Amino acid sequence: MDHILSGIPVAKALQEENARIAAGLRERGIVPALAILQVGSRPDAMRYAQMLQKKSAECGIDVKLTELAQDAPQAAVCAALEMLNRDPAVHGILLMRPLPEGMDEEGLRNRIRPEKDVDSATDASLAGVFTSKPLGFAPATPQAVLEILRYYGIPLRGKKVVVVGRSLVVGRPLAMLLLAQDATVTICHSKTENLPQLTREADIVVAALAKPEALGADCFRKGQIVVDVGIHRRGDGSFCGDVAFSEAEPLAQAITPVPGGVGSVTTAVMLRHVVQAAENKE
Amino acid sequence: MDHILSGIPVAKALQEENARIAAGLRERGIVPALAILQVGSRPDAMRYAQMLQKKSAECGIDVKLTELAQDAPQAAVCAALEMLNRDPAVHGILLMRPLPEGMDEEGLRNRIRPEKDVDSATDASLAGVFTSKPLGFAPATPQAVLEILRYYGIPLRGKKVVVVGRSLVVGRPLAMLLLAQDATVTICHSKTENLPQLTREADIVVAALAKPEALGADCFRKGQIVVDVGIHRRGDGSFCGDVAFSEAEPLAQAITPVPGGVGSVTTAVMLRHVVQAAENKE
Repeated sequence: MDHILSGIPVAKALQEENARIAAGLRERGIVPALAILQVGSRPDAMRYAQMLQKKSAECGIDVKLTELAQDAPQAAVCAALEMLNRDPAVHGILLMRPLPEGMDEEGLRNRIRPEKDVDSATDASLAGVFTSKPLGFAPATPQAVLEILRYYGIPLRGKKVVVVGRSLVVGRPLAMLLLAQDATVTICHSKTENLPQLTREADIVVAALAKPEALGADCFRKGQIVVDVGIHRRGDGSFCGDVAFSEAEPLAQAITPVPGGVGSVTTAVMLRHVVQAAENKE
Repeated sequence: MDHILSGIPVAKALQEENARIAAGLRERGIVPALAILQVGSRPDAMRYAQMLQKKSAECGIDVKLTELAQDAPQAAVCAALEMLNRDPAVHGILLMRPLPEGMDEEGLRNRIRPEKDVDSATDASLAGVFTSKPLGFAPATPQAVLEILRYYGIPLRGKKVVVVGRSLVVGRPLAMLLLAQDATVTICHSKTENLPQLTREADIVVAALAKPEALGADCFRKGQIVVDVGIHRRGDGSFCGDVAFSEAEPLAQAITPVPGGVGSVTTAVMLRHVVQAAENKE
């Protein structure tokens, strides 16, 4: 097994598979398509949309970008979503968030049809993760964790995985995905007593507590697999994760880097959902 | 703390509180009402409905029983559910299951409006448990576990709870409810390696694996809290749980009995949901 579990080859393999599936669909006359709905023109959202367009083009997914003005009324966002819901040529819908202040974000994102909810924006997608039913799609970040473990051949069945963090975007859905792979899962959080002892007992530690370098040497023992979901920008512009990498790396059997770890896989996962949505519709 | 965590006084306390809330509602002109929809007349379903009527009467909840013939078409069940959904005088709906063979049970139970889903029959209720959002109601059995722990003053915050079993009726929703109480939760199951070691490390062990007396002396250490969700009928007609009681009881600081433990609290929990549904509608 590699010592550094880079996300780069994982994303590359996923993208190649996405391209293969998309090519097959195109041969059968189906052009997999992702619709991005953007309200306003925040520079970071624009950059993200551009990156998505590039990655989609790479693997043969069409992107349909709908831009509404920053001051568009909620009814206009709602109408745009409904049009995309009904459009048979659109397989996945991505509603760029955060929405402008004052909009009912929860209400709007839940309007997306679960079968087009490639970004896990709806309660239905979360219910699907919880119940292991084919409702919507799993959130990209926890699924990226699983893709990394799968790519590097790290077994999960029967293994003791400690997930640090219980958010609805990562910790809780990740626990459910790991459980579906027959892992024994412990969910820890800010109120957990003796956290370092618990993480030291794990075969695999997943750090998703969103605190820079919060897990240090005392949280690890020799021979563990460490997956770091966090990403934080330091004062000097460099990045770090939730794990103190320089302390954990010498102990770990294998560890994901930050950057270039989990975060580098999420887009490819989301695009996988788009081609899956197109396949499901076939 | 009591050594034997009987469910009987817990159910009694819940029922007294249900009666108090129901009396308050009635004073304000609201009669809390539970609708039971029964298809066919299986003797066990009839007995369960009778028991519910008695317990409801005890705490001031009206019961409206709708009985359809065993060979009623699915459309009739659907129509009956919709009528109850729309009836403003009905606060909770209980669809007796299993339904006759050939009916789309999943489709039918998901027709119940979440705000009337006092028996957690819908995916929306499960999504509510997972997301900690006020959608529907938690399943009665896992909530009964929490009511017992609360009644006997057993703290959960920061404590290590091991749940053995990952079913959608008990294990998974219980893990989420415990997490919401700030417990550190481990979910174990049939594929878990070294189960006895894991359960021995817990402050609280909840057995919900649905296997008679599957957890023996090797799974426990002195001073733990043991909650047994299982109930099984032995060949001689007596009952046992998922825990070998005679082996665990001498070690445990406190333990729930079977029968008279978790199972004796579930009806009172479901009736609590009915009065809550009536209160929410106010």
